[in-house]
Amino acid sequence: MRNRSCVMRLLRYKNALLKLKALNFVRVFSDNLADAAGVTSAQVRKDFSIFGITGNRRGGYQVGDLIENLSHILGKDKDYEFIVVGVGNIGKALMRYDGFEKSGIKISAGFDIDPTKYDPGAAVAVYDLSKLNEYVVKNKIRFGIIAVPEFAAQQAFEVMINSGIKGVLNFTPARLKGPEDCIINNINLETELESIIYFVNVADKTGGK
Amino acid sequence: MRNRSCVMRLLRYKNALLKLKALNFVRVFSDNLADAAGVTSAQVRKDFSIFGITGNRRGGYQVGDLIENLSHILGKDKDYEFIVVGVGNIGKALMRYDGFEKSGIKISAGFDIDPTKYDPGAAVAVYDLSKLNEYVVKNKIRFGIIAVPEFAAQQAFEVMINSGIKGVLNFTPARLKGPEDCIINNINLETELESIIYFVNVADKTGGK
Repeated sequence: MRNRSCVMRLLRYKNALLKLKALNFVRVFSDNLADAAGVTSAQVRKDFSIFGITGNRRGGYQVGDLIENLSHILGKDKDYEFIVVGVGNIGKALMRYDGFEKSGIKISAGFDIDPTKYDPGAAVAVYDLSKLNEYVVKNKIRFGIIAVPEFAAQQAFEVMINSGIKGVLNFTPARLKGPEDCIINNINLETELESIIYFVNVADKTGGK
Repeated sequence: MRNRSCVMRLLRYKNALLKLKALNFVRVFSDNLADAAGVTSAQVRKDFSIFGITGNRRGGYQVGDLIENLSHILGKDKDYEFIVVGVGNIGKALMRYDGFEKSGIKISAGFDIDPTKYDPGAAVAVYDLSKLNEYVVKNKIRFGIIAVPEFAAQQAFEVMINSGIKGVLNFTPARLKGPEDCIINNINLETELESIIYFVNVADKTGGK
């Protein structure tokens, strides 16, 4: 299962199921998961059938079983640590964000080239970028977030890759170039906002109110 | 052109062209734009041909003409204002982020229900959520960003929509429900990070180093 859209849907199902479980739900229907994930119920059933997950037409799926199945498929059986490179506004916000913990994700350190940002004693420590390699090797970190200015993105990425990082979330508009086996997810805030503007303008013109 | 992927590509081409223009480039080839946007050069030519933009096989495209063409297609001929609802870590970072300006996007105000966040005198003012309707109507704002906790997302969204907001960037994992003509882009940080973990784990298992 290498298809990114499919993985994103399975992650959304799993996160919706974890919430339902917290509400003591025992059974769930494909319609419920479709609503929670913003897809059709046919899509939910198709995704599940690919992995041999079958429900009962009358009784739906068992929440506990589904969570177990999806966790197994998604291979996320333990907590994972990320580092953040670039401790500016976005980097700092990510380091302080408390929504990751429930997904078993921990931001364990930040790195920057600006000495005024260093803060080794903070809840999430901030170190000099030159310490990244040592930290990543010692703590066997494989995941990172790039939140540096665009012009510094490729260089930051190379430092990370050369230290053993295998997957990054890139918050800059830069198109990173690296080894094929490295996973790069891009979040481009500017184009997200620009595409919203575009589609609202189109809706205006085509008679949407 | 309602296809989101196509719009996102055109936006990436345009942003790459603006950078090339700043570097005094006069001509550009589909290969250059393909590299900058992370697609194939055939894709670039296909996207352009849909809109009747033709290049010269030997001379490529004129940077200035292309920017004009794309700006016209993308309908972004002026600056646009966004408001931010939820002035926590992420909301604050977005309000301070200086990367939007060059794309003609301005974050003009923030709103929160927490009185300790109010700051009407700040560079980007923060007001009580109850003032949102008045502000949006008065300033004819049509775009917003939702950065509240997940449980408050749908309510914040409804306040925005009822005030005349037409497009939102949703930073929460909540699946927002609203009128069909409203544009919603979702950025789900948890699933972005979780999908990176998934794909790195898959690469590990299939023999990637």
